[in-house]
Amino acid sequence: MTHTIREKTKLLARVRRIRGQVDAIERALQSEAGCEQVMHIIAAVHGATASLMAEVVEDHIRCHLVDAEKHPGALDVEAADQLVDIVRTYMR
Amino acid sequence: MTHTIREKTKLLARVRRIRGQVDAIERALQSEAGCEQVMHIIAAVHGATASLMAEVVEDHIRCHLVDAEKHPGALDVEAADQLVDIVRTYMR
Amino acid sequence: MTHTIREKTKLLARVRRIRGQVDAIERALQSEAGCEQVMHIIAAVHGATASLMAEVVEDHIRCHLVDAEKHPGALDVEAADQLVDIVRTYMR
Amino acid sequence: MTHTIREKTKLLARVRRIRGQVDAIERALQSEAGCEQVMHIIAAVHGATASLMAEVVEDHIRCHLVDAEKHPGALDVEAADQLVDIVRTYMR
Repeated sequence: MTHTIREKTKLLARVRRIRGQVDAIERALQSEAGCEQVMHIIAAVHGATASLMAEVVEDHIRCHLVDAEKHPGALDVEAADQLVDIVRTYMR
Repeated sequence: MTHTIREKTKLLARVRRIRGQVDAIERALQSEAGCEQVMHIIAAVHGATASLMAEVVEDHIRCHLVDAEKHPGALDVEAADQLVDIVRTYMR
Repeated sequence: MTHTIREKTKLLARVRRIRGQVDAIERALQSEAGCEQVMHIIAAVHGATASLMAEVVEDHIRCHLVDAEKHPGALDVEAADQLVDIVRTYMR
Repeated sequence: MTHTIREKTKLLARVRRIRGQVDAIERALQSEAGCEQVMHIIAAVHGATASLMAEVVEDHIRCHLVDAEKHPGALDVEAADQLVDIVRTYMR
């Protein structure tokens, strides 16, 4: 099963932002930047990766657990919302 | 929706183990145990809490996202397995 | 090396709050509360445990890495502050 | 304060491996790979970022908290080892 174009564009933008941050870690190390700066950029990448994961997991929960064409209305939207909410809070 | 008795018993056993570990943190602090020991017990509680969460989330995914009586076979078991697998790996 | 009385009192208060939350998980499971409520209390315990860890680690960094009586002024306070800052941001 | 050349080379190799993994997420999204594959690569990046952070934090603890030239022997090596051990276990 594939992602919709809209989701794919949004996810790719997130991935490119993460790559920009990874490049910033490399530059900070190369230029002998202080440990503090390096640690802050790594923390940012770690957080951004968790947000990307939460996004993909949300997509998986909403779109891939039930084939909506074959089983319309089978996904309990409230239970799915609760799960997405926990994933967003917890996966940071 | 409620948990089955079997699941409930298993989850309660996990919760009680966590309470035992929390009591151990208190005793370690009271008895002026070294920082190292305190930090290790806290790390154990943190890990045990993450495992408990993974268990409840797995239960939620398998049992509550689709009402199996009303919509038998609607939950894509493979997609659910993949999600459970990620939850278990990631929520540590 | 031991914690000061002031720190110990504060840490014990945190541990007791965590035990109260663990008891709340048990009650929620016993009373067949919804998955959502159970998941939220577990997320709270997980967060509180991470905060407790950050507190103990901070204490360890500031008080135990250098014996201030034998080596006064040896701990680089700015470098210690940076580490504490990262620990607080990251250990959530 | 700066990292030694040896550390810097090792850290840069880790950063480049992470960038390779970020590129793999992009390719997986572009080629409409399954959610599962995308989630596994994101989990790998998240783990690799945590390991990189643990490495930089360890370096900071061992080399930057005490100026070893001005205060030789002031860093309590056992306390530093304990902290590094917790950081490695916990920051995953």
